[in-house]
Amino acid sequence: NHIIVCGAGRVGWQVAEQLSRENVPFVVVDSREDVLEKYVHGKFLYVHGDALDDAVLLEAGIERARGIVAALPTDADNVFITLTAKGIKADLLVVARADRLESEEKLRRAGADKVVSPAVIGGKRLAMSILKPVSVDYVDTVLHDREYEFSMEEMILQNPSPLIGKTLVEARIREETGAMVVAIYRGRQLISNPQGSEKLEADDLVILFGTREQLLAFERLAAAKPS
Amino acid sequence: NHIIVCGAGRVGWQVAEQLSRENVPFVVVDSREDVLEKYVHGKFLYVHGDALDDAVLLEAGIERARGIVAALPTDADNVFITLTAKGIKADLLVVARADRLESEEKLRRAGADKVVSPAVIGGKRLAMSILKPVSVDYVDTVLHDREYEFSMEEMILQNPSPLIGKTLVEARIREETGAMVVAIYRGRQLISNPQGSEKLEADDLVILFGTREQLLAFERLAAAKPS
Ligand SMILES: [Ca+2]
Ligand SMILES: [Ca+2]
Repeated sequence: NHIIVCGAGRVGWQVAEQLSRENVPFVVVDSREDVLEKYVHGKFLYVHGDALDDAVLLEAGIERARGIVAALPTDADNVFITLTAKGIKADLLVVARADRLESEEKLRRAGADKVVSPAVIGGKRLAMSILKPVSVDYVDTVLHDREYEFSMEEMILQNPSPLIGKTLVEARIREETGAMVVAIYRGRQLISNPQGSEKLEADDLVILFGTREQLLAFERLAAAKPS
Repeated sequence: NHIIVCGAGRVGWQVAEQLSRENVPFVVVDSREDVLEKYVHGKFLYVHGDALDDAVLLEAGIERARGIVAALPTDADNVFITLTAKGIKADLLVVARADRLESEEKLRRAGADKVVSPAVIGGKRLAMSILKPVSVDYVDTVLHDREYEFSMEEMILQNPSPLIGKTLVEARIREETGAMVVAIYRGRQLISNPQGSEKLEADDLVILFGTREQLLAFERLAAAKPS
């Protein structure tokens, strides 16, 4: 149930750092011995080999993995890894790095569940840093750091739950837990800032904002035995 | 009161796109005629010239600008732009792109107010995309898109304000406006998820989460004549 990080370069190394901070088990794969020696050895688990090679991904435990991050510097390599990984295990979560805008579509067609372009989010972040400097820092903190109490969580409303079939007003989430429902994803539909009259459905993905305690209280409320 | 975007490459172009989406006036500077012709011409205002050259920055209106984004692909160039820009106008907001981790410190010493590394935030984003896929999308939406109602805003509590000297409980911000105070920056100190007993001070930078209407209600409350 670990994560495989392909590439130990500047981007891949950041992925590893972040997963380590979140206490998530992972293994790094890279074919460059000097890069592994310099950044990874003695710090993170790794497999020395080419992530484009089925045998290497099998050695990294892809059959038991829950996800793979394709973070090599070349988009063509990340497309190849995506195809290989989905070929070995179709339900694996694949997140891929894209350097060129045009590659995003190709990575998706290869089966990537999520594509991240450092240039695109870097550019957006530069723009927002000049427009809303403090909020940008704060959101980074909330999303990336466990130390601050407020954060954003996502939870699937699984059947059975006493909340299913109730409107947000009837569910009394804010009153009972203090957490705020900021959005609901229902299939592909995003309901942002839902009205009190919005009725919760089974399998809704609910996004909440609150303290750790409030989010835990919501989890308990959602998972309670229906009365 | 515009923004100068140095570099029209992959990152700089995203900066321009985002500023354009936010209806903020800006001008792009690049020395590569083919890049300007292909991506910028007929779409954004631009100056053809080398952003490392004082005369070019003056032509881009640096004396009247409120900020500059140094988004060239080379860290050495961005350090040079930062020094040049701060030399011409010391109180200009300078946001710089860093490719290498080691450059961040150099850019700050050159005077950059904020440094953004696409590789670092790209790596973090890849990691969080595999751990909290939906929240990541949602935060992107809230921060980058005006269309969704919930968002994060930052506001400096300027003297005089009826809120100064009151605790959060006494200020009744949530009750009166619906907006949530998620953090307060006081000088360099971050108070995340402040207690009800926290007393608001002049020049506090307050970060709020709420709908556009709630945030406007807070602005009115904060700016009301003291009674
Ligand atoms: Ca976290
Ligand atoms: Ca916006």
